[in-house]
Formats: sequence, C-alpha cells, structure tokens
Amino acid sequence: MTRTCLLHQKAFRRMEDELRGYAAEVDFITMDDEGVFANGFTGEPVSQPVPDMVFGNTDFFFGPKVRAFFRFLIDLPDLDWFQSSAAGMDNETLQAVHAKARLYTTNHTQSEAMAEWAIWQALDWLKAGRQHRAQEKEAEWHRIYHRDFIGSKWLIVGYGAIGQAVARRVKALGGLVTGVRRSGGTDDYADAIVTPEEMGAALRDADITLLCLPHTPETENMADADFFAAMKDDAMFMNLGRGALVDEAALIAEMDRGKPAFAALDVTATEPLPEASPLWRHPNIAITPHDSSLTLGTFVRADETFLANLKRYLAGEELIHLAPK
Amino acid sequence: MTRTCLLHQKAFRRMEDELRGYAAEVDFITMDDEGVFANGFTGEPVSQPVPDMVFGNTDFFFGPKVRAFFRFLIDLPDLDWFQSSAAGMDNETLQAVHAKARLYTTNHTQSEAMAEWAIWQALDWLKAGRQHRAQEKEAEWHRIYHRDFIGSKWLIVGYGAIGQAVARRVKALGGLVTGVRRSGGTDDYADAIVTPEEMGAALRDADITLLCLPHTPETENMADADFFAAMKDDAMFMNLGRGALVDEAALIAEMDRGKPAFAALDVTATEPLPEASPLWRHPNIAITPHDSSLTLGTFVRADETFLANLKRYLAGEELIHLAPK
Repeated sequence: MTRTCLLHQKAFRRMEDELRGYAAEVDFITMDDEGVFANGFTGEPVSQPVPDMVFGNTDFFFGPKVRAFFRFLIDLPDLDWFQSSAAGMDNETLQAVHAKARLYTTNHTQSEAMAEWAIWQALDWLKAGRQHRAQEKEAEWHRIYHRDFIGSKWLIVGYGAIGQAVARRVKALGGLVTGVRRSGGTDDYADAIVTPEEMGAALRDADITLLCLPHTPETENMADADFFAAMKDDAMFMNLGRGALVDEAALIAEMDRGKPAFAALDVTATEPLPEASPLWRHPNIAITPHDSSLTLGTFVRADETFLANLKRYLAGEELIHLAPK
Repeated sequence: MTRTCLLHQKAFRRMEDELRGYAAEVDFITMDDEGVFANGFTGEPVSQPVPDMVFGNTDFFFGPKVRAFFRFLIDLPDLDWFQSSAAGMDNETLQAVHAKARLYTTNHTQSEAMAEWAIWQALDWLKAGRQHRAQEKEAEWHRIYHRDFIGSKWLIVGYGAIGQAVARRVKALGGLVTGVRRSGGTDDYADAIVTPEEMGAALRDADITLLCLPHTPETENMADADFFAAMKDDAMFMNLGRGALVDEAALIAEMDRGKPAFAALDVTATEPLPEASPLWRHPNIAITPHDSSLTLGTFVRADETFLANLKRYLAGEELIHLAPK
C-alpha cells in the first residue's frame, strides 16, 4: 500500500537524499511558499492530495501560507500521523490538528539554538555589552569592569529539554545551576533541582533567572511584582517560554525600582510586540522577536526527528515524542 | 629573618585573611592609588620601603600611579622576586623589572575571562546581534535567521593558556577547534593541532579565526591582506593577542571587499585607539578597549597565583611560571 506524505518543499529538498529510500512506499507531496502542491521528486503539480502523514514544520509555521496549510489539514477527512517541529501545542490550531490526527508527535530539538540564545544574552549582559557599544559609538576608549560567567548562579525555571540544554552549557562554562521542576529529583547538569514550592530561596540567590516553561493556567503571570522584588540586586531575568508567563507592567515597574537590573525577552504577551510597547525602548530590556530557535541547524534537527519517526512509522514501530490523546 | 613584600592596597585587602598567616615572617607594605606606602595590617605610613618581593598586579597596571610604581621598582638597589599578574613581558617596563628581579614569575589566569570574551563576541555575531539591535531600536518585529554555535569551525592561532581556555569552551558548546602552535602535537580540547606552516587550509575552512599570540618580530602584521583574502565568505575574525599582529589598513580594505564578514578586536595597534581611526565606526567591527580580562574574577585568580608562589617562596620551593633569565 502506498502512503502519501505532505511536507514543505524546502524540507523535502533538504531531505531529498534520505527520502529517496522510501520512494517505493511513500508518495511525497510538497507544498511551496505559494501554497501549490506538487510531487516532490518530479515537481509535477498535484491538485488535491489526501495525505496519511504530514510533517508540519517551521517552513510552514513561519511561511506566508501558514493559514492555508492549517485550513487544508483541518478540512481533511482524517489524518493518520502529524509530526510537528514544535515542542508544545499551546495554540488552538495545533490543538485542532492534535484532535484530528490519530498520531501526533512533537519535537524538542529547537532547544539547542534556544540554549545558545540564553548564553548569548547572559554574556552580553555580564560583559557589559550595552556600555561597551555606547562607548564605541562615541569612539571612547575606557576600560569597563565587567563580570565573569564563571561562578554565575543560574535559576532555570522549567527544567525540560530547553532548561537542560541551557544547564549543560552553563555548567560547561563554569556557572552554577538550580533547576525548577514539579517532579524534583536530580539531574547531571544541575547542582540542585527544586520544586516550584521550594523556588523562593534560589530566586533570591540567583544572578540569572530564566523562564522556559509552557503557558498553562498555573504559569500565567507567574513572574509578577513579588517575583521580581524577590530577586537580588544586579540580577538578570530572561524569558524563553511564553510571553504570558510575565506580568510585563510589573516587570517594568520593578525594574524602575532596580530589580531585575536587566531583562532579555524572546517572547512577549502580545506578538508581534506592538510598536507602542514600553518594552521596546527600555534601556535595560533586550527584545528578540521570538526567533531564538531560528537557525538552519534547528530546521535540520527537526528534519532528523521527522526522519527517525518516518522510519518507525513505516516499520510499524512506536513513534518518539508521541503526544497523549 | 623578616622579609618585606610590597603589593597594592586593594590586593592586600582582598587577601588579608590569607596574608595574616604569614605576618610573623613578612612585613606587608601596601601602595594605594595615591602612591602612598603603608603597613598593610596597621595602616601606618611607611616612608621608604625596601621590598624583597613585589606583587605587581592589575591594580597597579591600570591604576593612576602606574608610572610611580614602576619608577620605584627600577630605582630599587635590587629585588629578589617579582610576581606579575600579566602573562607576557612585551613592554620595556616589564622587561626592565625582569632584568632587575632575581626571580620573575608570570600569571596566566586572565585567560578565563578572555576566553569568555571570545565566546561572547562569537555568539553576538552568530546570533545577529547588530541586526537584532537595529530592529529593536526601530520597534520592528521581524524574525531574523541566525547561525548555530554548534558546528562552528574555529581556528585558534596561538594555542597557549588563552587558546586552550577558548578551545575548552568552544568544544563544550559543540564547536570544532583547530589550534595553531609551533610545537604541533595534540590536545584534548582541539580536534586538530597544526603548525603555523600548515595553517592555510584551516584558515580557508574556518568560520571563526581568533588570534591569541604574543607580539614578536615573527608575528607582527601576520594578519595581512593575504591572510584575510584566504578566509571564506561569511567568516569572523577576532584578536585577543596584540594589536601589532594585525595590519589594520589591510583588514578594513579586505572587509570592504567582503572578508572577513565581521571583526571583533580587544587590542589595536595604537592604544588607546585614536578617535579618528576608521575602526571605530566600521559597521562590521566591534571594538573593546583591551579590557577582555577586566573582571573581579581575574583579580582574584591572579591573587591566587601570588599566594601559591608566596607559599613556595617562603618554603624555599621552586616557583610556578618562573620566567627564564
């Protein structure tokens, strides 16, 4: 029985060599940035494909035809397997696909690039990046005392794939890690793991506090005025999770009282962040547009997850990162 | 026999607890930022100390009385031991102290903070720091494709304490390292070690090329037009060694032809870098004012080298990092 698999044209091209090995069993149909369907290997147009499997990756999610892609999926009579390149399912569209697909698998390889973002932002703060660049702009040569990464104390709130990818790098660079997760326990890359209830002492002691949790009713606005007020002087705050974790008005108000000293946000409560938001022009807030994972390597690593699951799917084996129904 | 040891007041204060253990054998005399001598423990002024040992550290080197300090040393009838907080001796003043002191020891712990600088600069380039900040200034939210640190290919020219400290971090973050040193051989933190004669192929293949060599007649202007022209497109160049290693006019000319794509310099041929230098305002050059090692941790780690050698000196043991005469 020949199966049909839909994936983005760009993803198909990256994996063409590997996919050729499945050409006898699978018709690979691509969708391009214009929303046109075609046979992957021949390039011939295809009018109304009915895929059994779909690899929904970032080429779709950040592409111009994201709405048409999801509309097509939702309108399918049924769908056997959906491989997402995203880790979570915290929007209604992905939840609808999850409801439709018999098998829905997630992917966690974007954590590598996201962890690099956290190290970058931390170093830029520790090394006085803003002060150095302000001097450079004025052609001023004054040595600036800055801080070591070695010995920096990190609190990583949400110790899943992203938190652990950050922790591994922090430890390798000589920092100290406390991870926060509900299940507690221990981990090779953390000096300590605490539960959310036990987090207070670590928050008061951390130089750098990073959120990398999903958005749930429990985590919404967890970083509020009390949270920021508990931080020590000269501490940094980062958010790689979801904007809804942070009470942004409280963040600005508490920063203006002195804590945290600096904040780096890859996610905001409203995205795109409105031009009028005071976050944009705050002297001690760095904003990146939810693109911490947007590297070629992230695409390639998500492709690898898809390929691993494709092999398992065709062999009738259990898929990795299968989301519970 | 009581010995006399001269050190900066700030260094004395950081180590006061440890130095108390030697109070019976050693008179610790401090010099402060006004150039005034005093007894370390009592604070009483001392008029003309004649130290056997001197800890010449960054508190002196970057302090307001650096000239008075070295004038005092040169005018001493003799000096038994000088502990420097610097790794090299590539200026006439340190060479004169070396000629005077029976024992002259160097220090290599500044490499930790310098290696952090290299990782910071590399990440700021890989993660499109300048483009992100330009967008942020305009309150624009457009995702920017950037690059992974994982898989980045580094060429570290000069594989001593600094080069190895960088390599250790690069490997931990998933990069690949080729180190260049005259003695060749192998190293745990390098994927390959090559000699200067064999460097060409690695230079053509590197994403990031870092100089961390001393200035000698052999290394002067080693980074010239041919060097930059050999780099691949979209490569980065960094200098943590000495400004004299780089032909700055050639760097700018070759960058304007496209290679390297970005340069980060902590050292320049003339320091302070003159306001008129085109390096300051080049859009793809980052300048820091020779302060890559200027962290509190660097001071503390140099203090530790001094304390380790003080213990050995008083016990009549061989000193570490003893410079040949």
